[in-house]
Amino acid sequence: MSDASEIWATLTAVRREAPLVHSITNYVAMDVTANGLLAVGASPAMVHAVEEVEDFVSISSALVVNIGTLSPAWVDAMTRAADRARSLAKPWVLDPVGAGATPYRTGVARELARHRPTVIRGNASEILALAGEGRAGKGVDSTHASDEAREVARELARELGCVVAVTGAVDYVTDGGETVGVANGHPMMSRVTALGCTASALVGAFLAVRENPVTAAAHALAVLGLCGENAARESPGPGTLRWRILDELYRLDEAALHGARLTFS
Amino acid sequence: MSDASEIWATLTAVRREAPLVHSITNYVAMDVTANGLLAVGASPAMVHAVEEVEDFVSISSALVVNIGTLSPAWVDAMTRAADRARSLAKPWVLDPVGAGATPYRTGVARELARHRPTVIRGNASEILALAGEGRAGKGVDSTHASDEAREVARELARELGCVVAVTGAVDYVTDGGETVGVANGHPMMSRVTALGCTASALVGAFLAVRENPVTAAAHALAVLGLCGENAARESPGPGTLRWRILDELYRLDEAALHGARLTFS
Amino acid sequence: MSDASEIWATLTAVRREAPLVHSITNYVAMDVTANGLLAVGASPAMVHAVEEVEDFVSISSALVVNIGTLSPAWVDAMTRAADRARSLAKPWVLDPVGAGATPYRTGVARELARHRPTVIRGNASEILALAGEGRAGKGVDSTHASDEAREVARELARELGCVVAVTGAVDYVTDGGETVGVANGHPMMSRVTALGCTASALVGAFLAVRENPVTAAAHALAVLGLCGENAARESPGPGTLRWRILDELYRLDEAALHGARLTFS
Repeated sequence: MSDASEIWATLTAVRREAPLVHSITNYVAMDVTANGLLAVGASPAMVHAVEEVEDFVSISSALVVNIGTLSPAWVDAMTRAADRARSLAKPWVLDPVGAGATPYRTGVARELARHRPTVIRGNASEILALAGEGRAGKGVDSTHASDEAREVARELARELGCVVAVTGAVDYVTDGGETVGVANGHPMMSRVTALGCTASALVGAFLAVRENPVTAAAHALAVLGLCGENAARESPGPGTLRWRILDELYRLDEAALHGARLTFS
Repeated sequence: MSDASEIWATLTAVRREAPLVHSITNYVAMDVTANGLLAVGASPAMVHAVEEVEDFVSISSALVVNIGTLSPAWVDAMTRAADRARSLAKPWVLDPVGAGATPYRTGVARELARHRPTVIRGNASEILALAGEGRAGKGVDSTHASDEAREVARELARELGCVVAVTGAVDYVTDGGETVGVANGHPMMSRVTALGCTASALVGAFLAVRENPVTAAAHALAVLGLCGENAARESPGPGTLRWRILDELYRLDEAALHGARLTFS
Repeated sequence: MSDASEIWATLTAVRREAPLVHSITNYVAMDVTANGLLAVGASPAMVHAVEEVEDFVSISSALVVNIGTLSPAWVDAMTRAADRARSLAKPWVLDPVGAGATPYRTGVARELARHRPTVIRGNASEILALAGEGRAGKGVDSTHASDEAREVARELARELGCVVAVTGAVDYVTDGGETVGVANGHPMMSRVTALGCTASALVGAFLAVRENPVTAAAHALAVLGLCGENAARESPGPGTLRWRILDELYRLDEAALHGARLTFS
């Protein structure tokens, strides 16, 4: 099958199965993440109380943990949810937002990374910080190109036994061996908040219907990148882009997927 | 008066009086809820600290409690606010988001329902869960059609002494006796997060200007449904719909209200 | 230099330096605030845990504290962050959302105001409440015109040794001596939630590149007001306005700045 046919099969499965994606995510990202999951065909739920996170993981198809606006009570819930996901063999995604910015944040990100996520998705600065390398990013924005973290991502994937996705102008998805590059997207996307968080959430939805996590993550990133390209063409600025990208996620068809630019190495 | 004239009178009262609607709602819904209330002409405020919720209820015209991203500290604030609203004879709305999904959530929803809300608004799965019937929904999304919860809603309204509104393809609003059906809305609305929460918030605003809670709730649901229909006509997807629906709430006029589809039984 | 040239110099500096703006803000405002900062060219981060706020201030160029959805744990973080900003001589902005609405909120706002903010930005009711005058606003919305708080703002600025910006139909920015009036904006902006919070955030970004806080605040308010005017021309309602205003922040050019209406007294 061509890349486009493969991605179409994954996207169609998400739309058909509408997987319940449990998100423990940051306050900034909640709205666009929930809307992104709904637009692509999944069923999102934001649930964070320790009183119910484990029960909620049990009824979900995937878990996404995002530390953007972390605090100790939330980290406790994230850890419990991750452990439950792992014990039920459900996929879970870690988004280590801002790792490297403060010692607390870096420590939490590294600790969660040891709880066996299926996929870690971050920008270059975050992935470098997780690996104990590089200077910090600028708050939650990367100060490195994704290429700079490509090799480190591969080593980190081997060390943690998970898939690592570094997103940027080109996204790299690796399990430590194979690396898939995804060259879709548009520069204006970096002027919209929480699209990285949305990428992580879509990875969660795609993991729910695709067994191979490298494939699932690459397909999710290609879909979001393509939708970003399509939306940017009609957007005078990032305000319009933010919403048009959701329209594109909703109506993306097989023909548009022929614009996917995947490379394998 | 025709339905359209009645709804127009209610909507005009909201725009004229701009009632202050105190919302204790979930993180996902805060933005669209606040914007929805502003667009329709009300004055929203999101206030949740136990140190001030009771004082804030005292200066508000209605209270809306939504358990979407609940945790014990917030539930404490919700309970105090509800009790204060009741003691001041101010209307309050309960939105039992995700009732049935976990034991904790179901327990909190049932407990709050005993604090004498004026109106409970939920999807079919949530109303069935509140009544102790049916299987759970899919996280926060309903797995039942609203028709399936219609009779249960009527019984629940009688048991709790409040109005129950079950929303779906057709919305049913009942005080245990009379039931009003509202057949407005558009399927794409289910692909936008927190429009159910927004419906609950609008019910709060309408209760502030209309004494009969069945009428207030039915009018609010008709207005939101009509705005959704109008917005969907010009929306290529749910991203655009989300914002166009706010434009429609802002500019809805009496002529458009002739599209309201209310039935009484 | 003309006003337009001066504002253009400030805006260009923000776009070039992309200052990291640390925001401890309310749940309702997080999305539009982050998107507003990104659109104007700054780098936003929402960080509130006491475990890291002081470290985060250290790497940021400005701090914005907004009490919209306050609770004691957040107020603790706000206070620590403000003190750290002050000790590092970094600018910080206080947005006393809803001051006057409840005793708790008024008390917190007044206490934070004593921690030497660089700029306080609020609506007329909030500024009057901070100064111990006037009746309360309507929740978080002002019940006073900005003119009514103009003199009180000047006195408050002198008393606290900071700049006070009262926003409304005309915005007034004063250090207790000089007062700059900014007459940009559009009435429909009051139907979009959290644009006042966004104004405060932009003031933070502009303070990061301009030493004079009266100038920084006036320029930020002129830019947001102009973008609001431009966006409103093409917006059928507040839903569209909310996103078009971000487009305008992103693409505002020097020519458009000739519409800035600043007065000095």
